[in-house]
Amino acid sequence: MTVLSPGATIGILGGGQLGRMLALAAAELGFDVHVFTPEDDSPAARVAARCTRAAYDDTAALAAFARAVDVVTFEFENVPAATVEALVAAGAVVRPGARALAVAQDRLLEKAFLTEAGAPTVAHRRIDGPDDIPAALGALGAPALLKTRRLGYDGKGQAWVRSPADAATAWASIGAAPAILEAAARFEREISVIAARGADGAIAVYDVCENRHADGILAETRVPAQAPSATTAAAVAATRAVLAALDYVGVLAIEFFVMPDGAVLANEMAPRVHNSGHWTQDACIACQFENQIRAVAGWPLGDVTRFADVRMLNLIGDAAADWRAHAATPGAAVHLYGKREARPGRKMGHVTLLSNLRSSNGG
Amino acid sequence: MTVLSPGATIGILGGGQLGRMLALAAAELGFDVHVFTPEDDSPAARVAARCTRAAYDDTAALAAFARAVDVVTFEFENVPAATVEALVAAGAVVRPGARALAVAQDRLLEKAFLTEAGAPTVAHRRIDGPDDIPAALGALGAPALLKTRRLGYDGKGQAWVRSPADAATAWASIGAAPAILEAAARFEREISVIAARGADGAIAVYDVCENRHADGILAETRVPAQAPSATTAAAVAATRAVLAALDYVGVLAIEFFVMPDGAVLANEMAPRVHNSGHWTQDACIACQFENQIRAVAGWPLGDVTRFADVRMLNLIGDAAADWRAHAATPGAAVHLYGKREARPGRKMGHVTLLSNLRSSNGG
Repeated sequence: MTVLSPGATIGILGGGQLGRMLALAAAELGFDVHVFTPEDDSPAARVAARCTRAAYDDTAALAAFARAVDVVTFEFENVPAATVEALVAAGAVVRPGARALAVAQDRLLEKAFLTEAGAPTVAHRRIDGPDDIPAALGALGAPALLKTRRLGYDGKGQAWVRSPADAATAWASIGAAPAILEAAARFEREISVIAARGADGAIAVYDVCENRHADGILAETRVPAQAPSATTAAAVAATRAVLAALDYVGVLAIEFFVMPDGAVLANEMAPRVHNSGHWTQDACIACQFENQIRAVAGWPLGDVTRFADVRMLNLIGDAAADWRAHAATPGAAVHLYGKREARPGRKMGHVTLLSNLRSSNGG
Repeated sequence: MTVLSPGATIGILGGGQLGRMLALAAAELGFDVHVFTPEDDSPAARVAARCTRAAYDDTAALAAFARAVDVVTFEFENVPAATVEALVAAGAVVRPGARALAVAQDRLLEKAFLTEAGAPTVAHRRIDGPDDIPAALGALGAPALLKTRRLGYDGKGQAWVRSPADAATAWASIGAAPAILEAAARFEREISVIAARGADGAIAVYDVCENRHADGILAETRVPAQAPSATTAAAVAATRAVLAALDYVGVLAIEFFVMPDGAVLANEMAPRVHNSGHWTQDACIACQFENQIRAVAGWPLGDVTRFADVRMLNLIGDAAADWRAHAATPGAAVHLYGKREARPGRKMGHVTLLSNLRSSNGG
């Protein structure tokens, strides 16, 4: 693909907050943005030059979208394979590509791929029905975590299995869908690596993030991570290996468990900008959204230098009502997503608290 | 005015790069943006939720715009007084208000106001016709600069007068319009102060900028300014006095000449975000665009702490073609405005070069 000049159009699948922040980053670089989303009045569409509102299986709309844009990227990993096929058939370049999506959409494929690429994962077994659970539980130890292979996120599609007697209930609770059973990872902390790979193969890695989840949803990210340098180095090396193995173009995130011995186990990967990388907007020269746009446009990657320590807090559901207090806090950067309604568990915004900058105060 | 909650709509008069960057900042805070501009396919409209394309004297369109938004601000100081009157008549709150615009639109009023408020200006005389020039030139000394009272910017509407014999030519060259004759300021450098005042009267002042112009257009801004602390303190104090005297709400910029003795003389004020403040996007926690939105929305002002030294280069006309080199420069943040055509003298983008950060490099 040629390098896109300013004025070209970036196509984004998905109209949520990640699409919105990608659109804002694209605009700063002089690009136009065209959003494709089934959603009406979406956060991303409200900051984009154009929006196609259509279903992800509307092949005519996809073909028109493909012709109207210069490259297509996406804000979510569950883009249907048929959607990507329709876009490619209509001549679109989709970045990152179909392989990264296929791997990320199936927990079993993902774990096999990560292990093969050099990012060890948590021990697990394939589960095709409730009858597979007792033997797997015996091998992995109880409790273990049953997860659907597909379409799980933010803790959805998961159930703990404490004994063989739980098998039928757990299987039903995840929707009786193809699954894996994962050993309980007795980790000390969770970290993530956000990295970008350009069309030229160059890789840029942001400083490693430490994450805290609540109710299966990211609650807080801190940088720098409280982890030995050998641990963060292992996570970064694994991420670089995955990027290269996928011949990846764009931003990728991998979540890791840090074990008591300092080893890292890959938990999952996201072939997109990631919530644990939002702090890069406020503490790095080029943020993850800008680097995603740069990568898919064929530009050199931007500078990932971090110049502050950060604590990023997600504003989930009613927590968004705290925006006044955050807006009045020195050293805080407030980001709100333009969502009309604050529902429980819904990501409404985030706030980045900066510290330890080299600061020179205004007059 | 009440404090606007996220989800409210910010109205912006003007569709250029300042409107675009204001719109992007508003979106980060969760606001919708509605742009009003006569221009088709404008840079700001392409990142806004809504755009009204109409003339600034279209009172019906202005009234509809006023009803559709929660506050109105603007990207340029030459908003016609009748436009503001029509908006206010239709119920809009316009920030900053009519008084700041009236002062900024007339160089004679502006200089009288600045002097009265405590910001001394360059010696000058009122010129109502070519016959006024010789006496004024005698009082001010030659050469002196003839400037139209209204609608001058980026060096337009100005002519040097070197002798009384130049009077008729100079008068014709500025369009035979009411003018002032300004003494030549034999300044050592040009600085500017970008400051914000909230609806609550709080003032936040960014670190003082040093500017270099070429062909009457800002070419480069550096921060910190190379000026004694007493000089920058005097400029900041004058700016604070002006903000208070206008009961101002929003971001204001004042350009000053620094004289050989270190004194400052106010050159002109802009009742809006300003080109010499673009570096705040990359080197401050809250940039000038965010603080303009915060102020007009009734929010507390954001943190103006600066954490890097900067050199901001305007990309004017064909210089925008250098985006590839800038995009590949470590420590550089590239901003392009989405303008379709690079004409001579047209501001196409800017690049901020950051140095002296507290940096921790990615893995």
